[in-house]
Amino acid sequence: MSIFLKVVPVSEAITTVRRIAPAPAQETVPLESAAGRVLAADVHSDMDIPGFNRSVVDGYAVRAADTTGAGDAIPAILHQKGRVEMGHQPESEIRPGECIYVPTGGVLPSGADAVVMVENAEQAKDQVLIKKPASHGENVLLYNEDFSKLDRVLGRGRRLLAQDVGVLAAAGCATVRVFCKPVIGILSTGNEIVPVTKRPDAGQVRDSNSFIAGAFAEEHGCTPHYYGIVEDDRTALRAALKKAAGECDAVLISGGSSKDDRDMAASLIAELGEVIIHGIAIAPGKPTIIGRAGNIPVIGLPGHPASAFIVLVAIVRHLLDGMTGDSRPVTKRVTARLASNVPSQKGREDYIRVRVEEGVATPLFGKSGLLNTLVKSDGVICIPAGYEGLETGTMVEVLLW
Amino acid sequence: MSIFLKVVPVSEAITTVRRIAPAPAQETVPLESAAGRVLAADVHSDMDIPGFNRSVVDGYAVRAADTTGAGDAIPAILHQKGRVEMGHQPESEIRPGECIYVPTGGVLPSGADAVVMVENAEQAKDQVLIKKPASHGENVLLYNEDFSKLDRVLGRGRRLLAQDVGVLAAAGCATVRVFCKPVIGILSTGNEIVPVTKRPDAGQVRDSNSFIAGAFAEEHGCTPHYYGIVEDDRTALRAALKKAAGECDAVLISGGSSKDDRDMAASLIAELGEVIIHGIAIAPGKPTIIGRAGNIPVIGLPGHPASAFIVLVAIVRHLLDGMTGDSRPVTKRVTARLASNVPSQKGREDYIRVRVEEGVATPLFGKSGLLNTLVKSDGVICIPAGYEGLETGTMVEVLLW
Repeated sequence: MSIFLKVVPVSEAITTVRRIAPAPAQETVPLESAAGRVLAADVHSDMDIPGFNRSVVDGYAVRAADTTGAGDAIPAILHQKGRVEMGHQPESEIRPGECIYVPTGGVLPSGADAVVMVENAEQAKDQVLIKKPASHGENVLLYNEDFSKLDRVLGRGRRLLAQDVGVLAAAGCATVRVFCKPVIGILSTGNEIVPVTKRPDAGQVRDSNSFIAGAFAEEHGCTPHYYGIVEDDRTALRAALKKAAGECDAVLISGGSSKDDRDMAASLIAELGEVIIHGIAIAPGKPTIIGRAGNIPVIGLPGHPASAFIVLVAIVRHLLDGMTGDSRPVTKRVTARLASNVPSQKGREDYIRVRVEEGVATPLFGKSGLLNTLVKSDGVICIPAGYEGLETGTMVEVLLW
Repeated sequence: MSIFLKVVPVSEAITTVRRIAPAPAQETVPLESAAGRVLAADVHSDMDIPGFNRSVVDGYAVRAADTTGAGDAIPAILHQKGRVEMGHQPESEIRPGECIYVPTGGVLPSGADAVVMVENAEQAKDQVLIKKPASHGENVLLYNEDFSKLDRVLGRGRRLLAQDVGVLAAAGCATVRVFCKPVIGILSTGNEIVPVTKRPDAGQVRDSNSFIAGAFAEEHGCTPHYYGIVEDDRTALRAALKKAAGECDAVLISGGSSKDDRDMAASLIAELGEVIIHGIAIAPGKPTIIGRAGNIPVIGLPGHPASAFIVLVAIVRHLLDGMTGDSRPVTKRVTARLASNVPSQKGREDYIRVRVEEGVATPLFGKSGLLNTLVKSDGVICIPAGYEGLETGTMVEVLLW
């Protein structure tokens, strides 16, 4: 294993993780549990929606033509034939000069083509004074207007939002076919890594990466499975990696951060499958490994938490999106004006943390290894590999946390 | 109960739900389960981070002054004194003219103040040729540079992101004090409402609102508790509302959508507590009720799903944010240019669904009751109560779904 990594562009790393992402399995869940899940198949309505012409206000069902020219001074006077009961078919139809009271959501009687709101009418015994003209279709949702029977209401790959779940209810889906949540194995290694419960001695640091990687997997619709800190020993690491690859859909190994540790991780991945990429032109995050143990994707994250996090955001996100089947991943982005010059090294993508306030992105300078700028920032900007930096005032796209 | 609602401005409705939102309880969870939860107390680091001067690259720890002017042609020649082992204190210190190999994450030996990357050095027996000058502090994270012991690393009210969880690990938090997830009771009523499993007869519609409201509560960090469809009968609804108010932290009653049903819901809320607001100057969503059963907030949502959803987005969101303790709620917003004129009625806030593509917001016209525009849109714009509409080209803020 060479001491110098052969680095590949970020775009190649993304293409690679997309290629090796295993297709998600499917399962059926009750509609109550479907929010946030990803549809595994197109969904079609089992009926016309609405199934009847429906009033959207409390008012009087009328023939619009009967209300032409109606006003406060000279109202149209209609004969009231009764009222529509909620949930039932009207008992009579409307002929010229007639109206029927209809509550919000009630069925429009046949013969009527509009509803005049109660606020624009006045009842006097069995007559109703209409004080505002109604146009054809006013205050009515027409039969079939929302969805036709067998219409595709939502497509495969859609991560279900609250309103989507409501539409699925209307379309008759008591259960939903969704992609299974991928299980992501998380393990940390490195002689310097100690558990969060321990106070580090000189030279030691707590295991932050397991928690960052696990929480990131969760944020992206996956289920983390924690394997803890594995002793920095070839036999122990091989056993842990094999176990995780056998139990999970992908594995994220974090650190060790030193070259020796990285080389051990890489050679073990090669032994159990293949190392496809070892080194990416990204800062921070260069010493990243992309490979497979059998058919299970294995990503070797840099040991330093700040670097590991950028690799999760820039690269691993694409692996997880591929594995969840999400066709419209949630990536919050805003465009902002850069508050100061940002230098960058040509030949690599530089990820710079920024604060965003009122359309202005202020770079948080400081070493890329700092954790405090990760939690003080609102997101990152990426300086493409071909640039030596960006100037004050440049409009940049901020990927928000 | 008057047939005409006394409508209040949206701002008053928001102030009201904020005021009646009960303060969240607290619980302690393991760090693995903390992602997405809201901190109930400020968190301070139990140690200095890093706890030692730490190399961020594989390289040679040096005194920066020894490398001044070093280059490919005339390298600085230093005596190599050995190597630092990961996780251990270095065995020796560096004096002028000396260097020590240090792996990424290793402790910087005393006497050194910078690290030269291996790529910029060449080892020749026990001598190392340094081919690039290092500046003081280069490639080193200094003791204490990230967080000092007892520094506040994250504040109360923060919804924990992946990187936050990593920082909590570094700060020694094996468990975290968070706000409990509020439990939101969801019930639907209305003679026209049938379960999703049933094919609606004429005049009937399936219960979409329970699912929309429950999923919305989940998206906002709450746990929905479903009470199903309650028969449109005063005794049954009173019993269901009392039960839900006794078991939950807030209750969302949806519909019935007709005036009679709304009046029944309002008078029952008044009987069990108080109706504070009945009618909001918002379209769609005017016939919304805000009240309390005892101290439990109760919101009466409009019966039509599209209207109910806008009320969730515009009003109920603020209730839930108050109840989760989230000080920085996730509201995805983008600024975009309006693609066409949008008329609006003065005196109410109009919520218009839009698609957003490349900075342009295209209004999806169509009746406000349509579900299909909810799922085809990317978000909404709000036309304030004082406006009669917005003109093409206006820069608008889109609240993304």
